[in-house]
Amino acid sequence: MSDYLISEKTLGATVGEVVLQSVRFESMPLDSGEQLAPVTIAYETYGRLNEERTNAILILHALSGDAHAAGYYPGESRPGWWETMIGPGKGFDTDRYFVVCSNVIGGCKGSSGPISINPATGREYGLDFPVVTVGDMVRAQKLLMDHLGIERLLSVSGGSMGGMQALQWAVAYPEAVASCIPIAATTKHSPMQIAFNEVGRLAIMSDANWNNGDYYGRAAPDSGLAVARMIGHITYLSDESMREKFGRRLRDKTALGYDFTMDFEVESYLRHQGEIFTRRFDANTYLYVTKALDYFDLSGGHGLLEETFRNLPSDMRFLVIAFSSDWLYPPYQSKEIVRALKGSGIDCSYLEMRSSYGHDAFLLENKDLNRMVWHFLETTARKGGLRFG
Amino acid sequence: MSDYLISEKTLGATVGEVVLQSVRFESMPLDSGEQLAPVTIAYETYGRLNEERTNAILILHALSGDAHAAGYYPGESRPGWWETMIGPGKGFDTDRYFVVCSNVIGGCKGSSGPISINPATGREYGLDFPVVTVGDMVRAQKLLMDHLGIERLLSVSGGSMGGMQALQWAVAYPEAVASCIPIAATTKHSPMQIAFNEVGRLAIMSDANWNNGDYYGRAAPDSGLAVARMIGHITYLSDESMREKFGRRLRDKTALGYDFTMDFEVESYLRHQGEIFTRRFDANTYLYVTKALDYFDLSGGHGLLEETFRNLPSDMRFLVIAFSSDWLYPPYQSKEIVRALKGSGIDCSYLEMRSSYGHDAFLLENKDLNRMVWHFLETTARKGGLRFG
Repeated sequence: MSDYLISEKTLGATVGEVVLQSVRFESMPLDSGEQLAPVTIAYETYGRLNEERTNAILILHALSGDAHAAGYYPGESRPGWWETMIGPGKGFDTDRYFVVCSNVIGGCKGSSGPISINPATGREYGLDFPVVTVGDMVRAQKLLMDHLGIERLLSVSGGSMGGMQALQWAVAYPEAVASCIPIAATTKHSPMQIAFNEVGRLAIMSDANWNNGDYYGRAAPDSGLAVARMIGHITYLSDESMREKFGRRLRDKTALGYDFTMDFEVESYLRHQGEIFTRRFDANTYLYVTKALDYFDLSGGHGLLEETFRNLPSDMRFLVIAFSSDWLYPPYQSKEIVRALKGSGIDCSYLEMRSSYGHDAFLLENKDLNRMVWHFLETTARKGGLRFG
Repeated sequence: MSDYLISEKTLGATVGEVVLQSVRFESMPLDSGEQLAPVTIAYETYGRLNEERTNAILILHALSGDAHAAGYYPGESRPGWWETMIGPGKGFDTDRYFVVCSNVIGGCKGSSGPISINPATGREYGLDFPVVTVGDMVRAQKLLMDHLGIERLLSVSGGSMGGMQALQWAVAYPEAVASCIPIAATTKHSPMQIAFNEVGRLAIMSDANWNNGDYYGRAAPDSGLAVARMIGHITYLSDESMREKFGRRLRDKTALGYDFTMDFEVESYLRHQGEIFTRRFDANTYLYVTKALDYFDLSGGHGLLEETFRNLPSDMRFLVIAFSSDWLYPPYQSKEIVRALKGSGIDCSYLEMRSSYGHDAFLLENKDLNRMVWHFLETTARKGGLRFG
């Protein structure tokens, strides 16, 4: 029975309590030519791996995300970052699939990154952590899949940087991927995307507390990181959604202040977003991960996407999704992927969802997104011979 | 003879050498309720005022502009900021019109602002300078017009903040304005425009050198100002124009650096823009002028633009111009002006120019812009009874 209508009840469903797990590997080579040793990968899993190990889906996170994609840590009230999409009966249906999400290397939520201890010094790496790429992130995830005994993923998916990793998975390990769902992603950063990242990096590196990345155990470059996050946050929204959400409403005031305190709600909202981000994120990781994003070029620099996709197995399936009001990763970038896939004879569906929420749309509750993903996975699973209860 | 075809020769024409002038007034009231005393206004003039004093045009500058709109200072090779539009035979035709441009109050190029000496202390004002509004900027310009003996302006025009001042002129002094040409402007800042400004302000105020605005004679908050400028600069361009200009070209490198030095041309371009800006602009002025922009609301807060325009004399004429790729001051904001003007029965032409240059388009060489403005002014002048040679 493949009929599926997501309900309010389904949207409220959850995988419940989850735990962060971790695995350590001796070493891995990086695109830069350096070695990372050791390599720790933090991850979570939801649902159950079937006996044939054929129902695994790998979820990839975005710049500020982590391995905690769904459910709740004991005693916490805030769910994982993609709770809207992962759970019993949801798009990534944990009644059917075994869903894995890991923190990227370079990150600050349990996987090896600049806050990890450098075995050569016994202190945090800081800027001695090697520069990593999206290719390296995916290579580390492949170690994790091998460790979990998963030879072939039913699907890889994520939004933004998560979508870029999903594309990298398909190209780097074509035999290990049955399907790919890149959402609000691109095969390479445009100069505007690089520019916004570079300004964020410069804000961090201009903070006197940054100290060339050596600030652990001391005051962190919170001001710079907050400015970087605020810049990012604006680019994740849309003009329209900001007008709907804030307009020109004043904050705790009945008239303009004629001073440099905050007057408008949008100002205090943004400052709050910047401030809370500094409590949960590491400034050096912000540098490493934005740099990985800027370096990413799925074609490997030659720019011929069709050539890149020509090596994919003919039974690989794609669902490419973009959002109409996303001006940071605009739909034209997703359409380039679709055009090249079709040019290479790969099975590809494209969905441009009407939304006023900008780039953030992929993180927001969305029945259509759940429904599209659920059906796409259902078809992929049946083609792969999976049978559900 | 009203035929006009702007040529390459016309685009190369210049008013030649110019001098910055200055006038000082005892005091003026501000929207905040405070008084500014004294009030210095720096200005330049191009062309000749006719005997009837009926051929004057006031040009208003944008955030980072100043009174030097056209021509050259002795020994300098860089012309004024609107050299593309002001000069003999150009849109603002100095063979016909007397063109005036002044530095806004709050500015740092000769008019009273935070770098001026506070008579109460004998030191620079810094943050003791009162917060000014676009209304205050225009009130100061009215003092200048009275001083120059100009009772009625043939036109007021500017781009971005200049266009906002032009609109304010029309509403605040309707009898003193025959026509108005707001370009890439708005009647009020959207939350996105406020948000980008607020992040820029926070970058400056987070710079340890800012010292609550008291940094004159010491190290200035150049890092913060550079970050603010870089954010602004990205918003003045368009995704398309950046792709055309930079693509993903590497800078002085043949391969990625795998470090945090700059890899891409767009990065070094932006850093350079930020750096040179700190040599010519004051960080406190950046705070004051962006705050004036965010406060601006032509309707005075009630949001009923048609009501606002209903007091305009029926013979006032408007030419409203927007650029298709301008996402910072998008065409919908100009269309709101046009809709309200038409609803109030005011003569209004609207031009949405196709351009890939984003918000910066108003500053770039543009034959169509010259031609449209030239013809609009010609008609305005003839309706006002002006006769040319």
